[in-house]
Amino acid sequence: MTLKVEIRPGTYFDSIVLMQLQRKLAALPKIEDAGVVMATPANKELLEGFDLLSPEGVEAGPDDLLIVVKSDDANAAADALNQVDQLLQEKRSAISQAFRPHSLGMAAKQLPEAAWVLVSTPGRYAADVVKESLNLGKNVFLYSDNVTLEDEIALKVKARDKGLLVMGPDCGTAVINGVGLGFANRMRVGPIGLVGASGTGLQAITTHIHNLGSGISQAIGTGGRDLKAEVGAITALQGLEILKQDPDTKVIVLVSKPPAAEVATKLLAAARAAGKPVVVDFIGYPPPAHQLGNLYYAISLEDAAELAVNLSNQDIQPQKSSTPKGYLRGLFSGGTLAYEAMLGLQNILSPLYSNVPIDKYQNLEDPLNSKAHTVVDLGEDLFTVGRLHPMMDNDLRIRRLHQEVEDPETKVILLDVVLGEGAHLDPASELAPEIAAAKKLRPEIEFLAIVIGTDEDPQDTSAQIEQLEKVGVQVFRNTGAAIKYINAAYATQSEVVESHLDVGKFKEPLAAINVGLETFYDSVIGQDAGAVHVDWKPPAGGNEKLMDILAKMKN
Amino acid sequence: MTLKVEIRPGTYFDSIVLMQLQRKLAALPKIEDAGVVMATPANKELLEGFDLLSPEGVEAGPDDLLIVVKSDDANAAADALNQVDQLLQEKRSAISQAFRPHSLGMAAKQLPEAAWVLVSTPGRYAADVVKESLNLGKNVFLYSDNVTLEDEIALKVKARDKGLLVMGPDCGTAVINGVGLGFANRMRVGPIGLVGASGTGLQAITTHIHNLGSGISQAIGTGGRDLKAEVGAITALQGLEILKQDPDTKVIVLVSKPPAAEVATKLLAAARAAGKPVVVDFIGYPPPAHQLGNLYYAISLEDAAELAVNLSNQDIQPQKSSTPKGYLRGLFSGGTLAYEAMLGLQNILSPLYSNVPIDKYQNLEDPLNSKAHTVVDLGEDLFTVGRLHPMMDNDLRIRRLHQEVEDPETKVILLDVVLGEGAHLDPASELAPEIAAAKKLRPEIEFLAIVIGTDEDPQDTSAQIEQLEKVGVQVFRNTGAAIKYINAAYATQSEVVESHLDVGKFKEPLAAINVGLETFYDSVIGQDAGAVHVDWKPPAGGNEKLMDILAKMKN
Repeated sequence: MTLKVEIRPGTYFDSIVLMQLQRKLAALPKIEDAGVVMATPANKELLEGFDLLSPEGVEAGPDDLLIVVKSDDANAAADALNQVDQLLQEKRSAISQAFRPHSLGMAAKQLPEAAWVLVSTPGRYAADVVKESLNLGKNVFLYSDNVTLEDEIALKVKARDKGLLVMGPDCGTAVINGVGLGFANRMRVGPIGLVGASGTGLQAITTHIHNLGSGISQAIGTGGRDLKAEVGAITALQGLEILKQDPDTKVIVLVSKPPAAEVATKLLAAARAAGKPVVVDFIGYPPPAHQLGNLYYAISLEDAAELAVNLSNQDIQPQKSSTPKGYLRGLFSGGTLAYEAMLGLQNILSPLYSNVPIDKYQNLEDPLNSKAHTVVDLGEDLFTVGRLHPMMDNDLRIRRLHQEVEDPETKVILLDVVLGEGAHLDPASELAPEIAAAKKLRPEIEFLAIVIGTDEDPQDTSAQIEQLEKVGVQVFRNTGAAIKYINAAYATQSEVVESHLDVGKFKEPLAAINVGLETFYDSVIGQDAGAVHVDWKPPAGGNEKLMDILAKMKN
Repeated sequence: MTLKVEIRPGTYFDSIVLMQLQRKLAALPKIEDAGVVMATPANKELLEGFDLLSPEGVEAGPDDLLIVVKSDDANAAADALNQVDQLLQEKRSAISQAFRPHSLGMAAKQLPEAAWVLVSTPGRYAADVVKESLNLGKNVFLYSDNVTLEDEIALKVKARDKGLLVMGPDCGTAVINGVGLGFANRMRVGPIGLVGASGTGLQAITTHIHNLGSGISQAIGTGGRDLKAEVGAITALQGLEILKQDPDTKVIVLVSKPPAAEVATKLLAAARAAGKPVVVDFIGYPPPAHQLGNLYYAISLEDAAELAVNLSNQDIQPQKSSTPKGYLRGLFSGGTLAYEAMLGLQNILSPLYSNVPIDKYQNLEDPLNSKAHTVVDLGEDLFTVGRLHPMMDNDLRIRRLHQEVEDPETKVILLDVVLGEGAHLDPASELAPEIAAAKKLRPEIEFLAIVIGTDEDPQDTSAQIEQLEKVGVQVFRNTGAAIKYINAAYATQSEVVESHLDVGKFKEPLAAINVGLETFYDSVIGQDAGAVHVDWKPPAGGNEKLMDILAKMKN
């Protein structure tokens, strides 16, 4: 068995051409297998696994096109390689060459109604194509992967400033005004709009929605990195804005692989301000509850689809509320209660700090002093050296309560009161007078308490509750109930952001310029939408050195 | 306003004594405030916040007892400090000194039926007390915090070897045979048993269970660090074993702050083998589904209680299944589907690796080669440089499929097939023959496919499904359905571990030896259980140097 190898340095062909060449070579007489790849380390390792890597192949670099054929007939292998140019010439496209513009600018003139550019060139060239598209005033669907994070941020900021949208990079799917872009299932138009930082996640939810008999208004992809802290969900926030304004969207679905915690909080604040039911599926992010206000938390993609369809069949009146100024201070004696409160509150209040943070950005560096919204677990080891646990001794908590009351920014104080064996025999008798005194000083502060106890506990749970209620404390019997109350009364809503987005563009019949994979052009045309395919080639034919020189001449 | 300070180097008093001294000093005439603390940095910072830190106080070290009084009358302050010794003498305990044994050994002779020792000494002394208790053949409830991780591991291993249980350190609560230990609410005895690495979590769930009209068989605390990777859930696994064997426990609840991922998998494998319904609330851990086999996932403490009560009212026949030998290999084209599969499978299969790991311990270092159970996302950037996405081109996936079939350890192959615009126009036509050929070679391998598509998709979804089913592929329409199937057929059950635990001890009337906080003795007695309180003092009265010498003399 021999391997014959040809290396073409710095040669660019799009991936479909490479795939077709490989298949044609492998189908030639006496050829057992073939490989046609850019010689990246990963691709060479793959070739090795398929017994397609020869010593010459090992030497090839990531900018080289590596063509390998395997045969037990050396002549047949040589013969196959001789046919490469001819095979590459074979017409593979149904698009008449005559109608193909050679640049974005020409394409834009040819199809002036195109509000979209679909970009699927190799990642290293994609940023330049997107920049050009934005300069032409087009929204972008950016399928390409291997685009740098820096480029992504720069492109998205540029787009936002121009009132345009960049979906991607690595955006697998979108449905704009009924037309699927990239990988997209065909489905009914309907009342559910989606924003998704997850391609197959969007596909799984939208197909399930369709299969349940409902349909999609818009599905806006963001690319998987949009919800990273560095990008800050620029596209997802724009997407929510579009769906908020879209009268045909009755229910919104927000789906993503687990976002950065601070980005999740920001997005949820925007979702809360959407004034419509929003189904949230941050895959792998612990749901704080089944429902908090207009947010419904799903635990899987199927669950998200089913929730959205159910909600779209209900008549839900959105409640408008404004965020009251001031901060919540949670002073806990129970560690798990503090933690569960954090899990709920991180969906509601921002910024939020704690000495039992769920995410490191919530870390309260100085546990002895609160800042912004704060949850302190006063039972943490730090506080209990040579001191009784705060469930037994209220001294430390009462002192902290004074401290919070002195802070003019304090608006709500949340306590837990854990009864039972071992605990203080009458905590309310010590807490209630302090709360009463605090209320005299600062009547605008609201006091909330989570009371954990049974009717058999030595403290007499109902008497404890009564003492607290008598001084105006709002009492809850579990963390979830307190979280629901805080959500309704105090949830952070995102500030109104000046949005330049032309939402009308999303309601017009879709027309698009395609740069890169021809299949995406075929698919848009196949959906009876307008499209033009650019006969794109990388600058300098993909020759790195020449590209550098060209770039320098431009500057 | 003056501060008068007294420092007593290396002096030990238990925290209740310190708390009482502080209160008595603060209540003396003309005294405005008082502080009595061990002079740790945190405590000194707290004193500073209360305006109770003087320059002498700043100089005190963590082994010094720091006594501060604040007054605008210097004489009154001096007078207060002069009363310290007398105040410390005041009898504060109801326990007759005559009945107090001075050592654990004496206590064990006085109450030979005591199977438990409750330890709440300061953390630095606790390990020695626990060791002595284990040597006496007692189970331990270890309330103390500030115990080192090394000590925790050593003590738990020692206990396990002896067939004993160490609940803690930092174990807030437990209910053994109807008697609450530490902080514990009083409640009905009933059919629900709990294992919890979270004190107030256990309290919140058990009180809610009681308030719903049901009751508790046993509630076993583990201490918050038990589910860390280093400890490996030694106590939680023992706890599950006890509840599995306990005929009075019908439903088990497993609650914890988020465990280390590999520990979660291990615990879930043990829970699966329990042969009873198990409600899981790993607070902040994303639930993979509402139910997987005998495991029911709660999203909050209330939810856990409600699920447990509902399940205890149902007649559920446990299904016994054994783990088939061999591994699952998931070859995905959709990133989010791969991720969602991981979220589900990490609850089911162990060990599990992936190039899209949820936790770093699942990281598949070499994405080109599977090991154990593996999920590969073939659409990851690594695989798509100069190559079409696997939704468009099946070549890479088919090659990987061959590779998996050649591996004798492969038992199940799981694929996703994502249809729609942009995707391959007939993926089943390429996959089905390969699967048929693989089945001829390895008939014992089961093929599963998740097919995402609508009835309007260009590929004709039902025809795709038919092609796959014809070659024996089990088809699912979403990830959740596939996970449920894999759970029923292939879930990893924990190996049977030789358990020396004397479960009978947990059914006997509780009797305990108390070392540390007297309130815990009072509470056991108050529940009509047997107890004896040890008049414990730290070795050498807490003098560090003397303790060192004593320790050296012992060795």
